[in-house]
Amino acid sequence: MSINVEIITIGDEILIGQIVDTNSAWMAQQLNLYGFSVIQISSVSDNKELIKEALNEAEARASIILITGGLGPTKDDLTKSTLCEYFDSALMFNEEVYQDVELLFKDRGLEVTPLNRMQAEVPDKCKVIRNKVGTAPGMWFEKQGKIYISMPGVPYEMKTMMQNEILPQLKKQFVSEHILHHTLLTQGIGESILAEEISEWENALPENFKLAYLPSVRSVRLRLTATGFDYDKLKSTFDKQINTLREQVYKYCYGENGDSLEKVVGDMLKSNHKTISTAESCTGGHLAAKITKVPGSSAYYKGSVIAYANETKQNLLEINPDDLEQFGAVSRQVVEGMAKGVMKKLQTDYAIATSGIAGPDGGTANKPVGMVWIAIAEEGRVFSKYFLLGNDRGRVIEAASLTALNLFRRFMLNEI
Amino acid sequence: MSINVEIITIGDEILIGQIVDTNSAWMAQQLNLYGFSVIQISSVSDNKELIKEALNEAEARASIILITGGLGPTKDDLTKSTLCEYFDSALMFNEEVYQDVELLFKDRGLEVTPLNRMQAEVPDKCKVIRNKVGTAPGMWFEKQGKIYISMPGVPYEMKTMMQNEILPQLKKQFVSEHILHHTLLTQGIGESILAEEISEWENALPENFKLAYLPSVRSVRLRLTATGFDYDKLKSTFDKQINTLREQVYKYCYGENGDSLEKVVGDMLKSNHKTISTAESCTGGHLAAKITKVPGSSAYYKGSVIAYANETKQNLLEINPDDLEQFGAVSRQVVEGMAKGVMKKLQTDYAIATSGIAGPDGGTANKPVGMVWIAIAEEGRVFSKYFLLGNDRGRVIEAASLTALNLFRRFMLNEI
Repeated sequence: MSINVEIITIGDEILIGQIVDTNSAWMAQQLNLYGFSVIQISSVSDNKELIKEALNEAEARASIILITGGLGPTKDDLTKSTLCEYFDSALMFNEEVYQDVELLFKDRGLEVTPLNRMQAEVPDKCKVIRNKVGTAPGMWFEKQGKIYISMPGVPYEMKTMMQNEILPQLKKQFVSEHILHHTLLTQGIGESILAEEISEWENALPENFKLAYLPSVRSVRLRLTATGFDYDKLKSTFDKQINTLREQVYKYCYGENGDSLEKVVGDMLKSNHKTISTAESCTGGHLAAKITKVPGSSAYYKGSVIAYANETKQNLLEINPDDLEQFGAVSRQVVEGMAKGVMKKLQTDYAIATSGIAGPDGGTANKPVGMVWIAIAEEGRVFSKYFLLGNDRGRVIEAASLTALNLFRRFMLNEI
Repeated sequence: MSINVEIITIGDEILIGQIVDTNSAWMAQQLNLYGFSVIQISSVSDNKELIKEALNEAEARASIILITGGLGPTKDDLTKSTLCEYFDSALMFNEEVYQDVELLFKDRGLEVTPLNRMQAEVPDKCKVIRNKVGTAPGMWFEKQGKIYISMPGVPYEMKTMMQNEILPQLKKQFVSEHILHHTLLTQGIGESILAEEISEWENALPENFKLAYLPSVRSVRLRLTATGFDYDKLKSTFDKQINTLREQVYKYCYGENGDSLEKVVGDMLKSNHKTISTAESCTGGHLAAKITKVPGSSAYYKGSVIAYANETKQNLLEINPDDLEQFGAVSRQVVEGMAKGVMKKLQTDYAIATSGIAGPDGGTANKPVGMVWIAIAEEGRVFSKYFLLGNDRGRVIEAASLTALNLFRRFMLNEI
């Protein structure tokens, strides 16, 4: 029997539809990895009576109740005072929490305000979960064998707290069966074609194994999960299955588990002592932003020219005006010129360039919205190809950036 | 008193976190526009007992219960049979619904399958809401003065049904209070300091007014809500309150309601017929990506130089090597040089430059992680300032980009 969890997200902004509750899906995913089942997710407004009612209903169904939101220092945030009433608890000033708040303000060059000093007041009947990345501490209550955990609603703060404190603690307290997970990350193949290619393997999986397809823009994660009591036996079968899957999706697989394409590519560059630059038109900096999101990327990334205007392509990348005139900015000639141009200007070993039509305007019959040319260059070799990436601006930009990174990975491996 | 609505979304895929429930937020927004209040959103799995329990709980609180999901033709979809049991109703074949299904299949060049023929069976105690864009009809039940409406979970089908049938019908049936919302968007001031600055005004708000603080990275949205029966009176008081708030937060307010900083800045550039370029070091393309996310940004944005390496700063932006040597890349001298350099190179009216330490490495005692210099330039005028933006790489990059855009907005307005 798996342990039942209920999630309560608190905040008027959810109930008037101003924000979409993304916290619940993330928490549910994480809890699933450990074998917990989320049986209900409830969103309630910043209202004491409704919060208490949600708690009452949740504790009748679940053993663990996770609560997010309503912990800010302002008047509309009522979660802490409601929990005090619910658990008949009084607020007490907590020195450790205050130090966390103080440190956070110091980092920003600020003094703690009286309002934020109140963030250090916590119910005396809870175990405090410290928050290193925000001012509101988490609170862990236990009552009649049930666990109630209150966290901030800011996704980053909630996630940090879940990963560092709450999930490890829940696992220690509840999980007896072993659960193994491994994820292979693929790019450049659709979910249904992928499913067909591996259907024979998937259908032959043992009963305690489960494969999940997790699609996002132009990529599909394949997560294999297995549960069992005999760890050694489980692990050995699991590793064999993962190896088989790895062989089958080899062509599309760019990484495993928590990898990102930009990190994989960065690690390859670093270990080969190579450098790269980029020249972007339609991706407009999104590709550079991905690359530089990786800590330490300055070791291999020298920079980019975002050449949004044609003059910029000419001025900074020395694109031949005749090529622009004759073939247009979205063409093999221009995108290859951009890659070679930036590689020369920034004196890097490799370069990636993108040029396309992100939309919603600018498409023609021959060059529709979503058409993106991508070029990869190194000294003496250029590869280029075009893709049709749909008609939603944001998705075109994201898909083009991912596709470019994966092409570059395969270019480095001499697969293309 | 406004009419209370509760939303129940049904589907295992929500509870394992595979999809984010975006239907609820959309429905809540729409209901709000008509003056209905959503008091709870619950997501439950495809399980008869849990669906009935959710209905029981919802009808104790709300007058209208909106249900989505679980109406597919496959075995795991249980909503219709559960509603039959709940309302003691039997399934009956509905000729009109069948014709809708048949038409839909015909449009796709297909015959209706037996599984899909079952979509035309509806509970005899409901009023059918026809679905012109999918196979599952909606169902409208009434019981003891309460309304229960079941809709498909596919967002497009649900939205079509809500807009064409359900919302107009609900509006007709219920006279309810008017609800007004207005949101002011601020950047560059923390939630708690903001709360203190406007506390006098906030405390003096009439009882039917409510202010919500909605914080995200380096920005806070202030949402004022008011309810009342007399629309004209409500609207006039509301407008006055919004005007007062606008005056009080004038310095930090970059936009209202659905605006984004990049869109506001883009609109200003467009209406002034001005162009801009950027030079980014620590933000690594994130600023450019924000600017180019806006459709039509090519009208005013010429491009960017992402100068991650010092050579790039020298080669492409003509930064004086002596300045780099003497003051370092993260300095007033270099960031101002970057802004002036890119403005000259790309021949734009304005330029924004960033240079900082995003971390986690590279910080020193004098220049800690999170220190970011930002410069804004136009012909004959440069403004620059440094900020301390915390120690999380992703947040430093996001905060620096937003801060730069807001400084630029204020620079254009001659406020700095």
